[in-house]
Amino acid sequence: MSTPEDKANRHKKRMQARKEIVDAGVAKALEERGIVIIYTGDGKGKTTAAIGTVTRALGYGYDVVVTQFIKGVWECGEKKLLTQLPQDKYPLQWYEMGTDFTWETQDFEADKAAARALWGKALAALQDENIYLVVLDELTYALNYHWLDKGEVVRAIQNRPPQQTVVITGRGAKQYLKDIADTVSEMRALKHAFSDGIAARRGIEW
Amino acid sequence: MSTPEDKANRHKKRMQARKEIVDAGVAKALEERGIVIIYTGDGKGKTTAAIGTVTRALGYGYDVVVTQFIKGVWECGEKKLLTQLPQDKYPLQWYEMGTDFTWETQDFEADKAAARALWGKALAALQDENIYLVVLDELTYALNYHWLDKGEVVRAIQNRPPQQTVVITGRGAKQYLKDIADTVSEMRALKHAFSDGIAARRGIEW
Repeated sequence: MSTPEDKANRHKKRMQARKEIVDAGVAKALEERGIVIIYTGDGKGKTTAAIGTVTRALGYGYDVVVTQFIKGVWECGEKKLLTQLPQDKYPLQWYEMGTDFTWETQDFEADKAAARALWGKALAALQDENIYLVVLDELTYALNYHWLDKGEVVRAIQNRPPQQTVVITGRGAKQYLKDIADTVSEMRALKHAFSDGIAARRGIEW
Repeated sequence: MSTPEDKANRHKKRMQARKEIVDAGVAKALEERGIVIIYTGDGKGKTTAAIGTVTRALGYGYDVVVTQFIKGVWECGEKKLLTQLPQDKYPLQWYEMGTDFTWETQDFEADKAAARALWGKALAALQDENIYLVVLDELTYALNYHWLDKGEVVRAIQNRPPQQTVVITGRGAKQYLKDIADTVSEMRALKHAFSDGIAARRGIEW
């Protein structure tokens, strides 16, 4: 039978091994630059993770630009909070397409025009070295619906200032987008409350 | 060759079909209650999504309690921002284990005691109907390392006030935890900048 001391020793040994792995990873990861992060997949948490990143960057006073390529008519808690902070301390610009969900409008040309106008804001941010973080929320839809030119988008992201990080969200990120990313997380929906008849909830889902 | 009008019509038709599916889902999803959300998997975005949810809930002025079962010694942007907001408007309580990463301390009993003290804070929140959102960040580690009693944790979550939502994060969520969740998103790391030698970045990774 193992004594508490055995257990403590096993734990210590396991943690020592873990520490060596972690330390080796940290020692190897020396390149300091902005990255491209993609949150894709069908599961919950893509936009939510982007908002978490915005909160994090603003916490250090970094300049952040959020562009939302689909959502924008709905009220949402994160926008209520983050856009009401004092701008001198938490410099955030927040832009939306300002049209309804595309399956509500059902008007390709109107959606495309709105998306392209918003892309102008995103492009300006991607060319501005004062911007530390650019969020392109639901960009995959704007690309997959052919509202935007994928070559133009890819070039703008690749040519951004080296210290700038870009977070892209949306289902169905294509391979050409993953190719230019440093980090790609795919959210898999193992379960989703909504599918089980539970209403989307204020302060949780939006 | 398809004319612009054909294209617009096809888009309209596709979006009409999409709208019917979305509307049917909304009509079916009528149950109004708090849910249990798990963010697990090896990919980036778990804690980040939890923080996004906190920002969202606070945006409506809901009461939020965050408990972090591993992180806590590091500085982090989201904590800097969210805990400095006016408490009367954005009521947030933020608790940490206050020990270093477990692979740094290598002391099972000290970690366990710290985890159990923190669990006391979480339990109080799970029994308080004024709390709209409880975050149990990195809870999976505290369970998988046997710092906490899984039966006690499961019961506390199941017996919480019906309008309260719980967000659990961490790698390696076990099946008994998934069983009590309404939404489970697994973040799969398709790519991770850190593995490619790029340093974790202030305002982005923490």
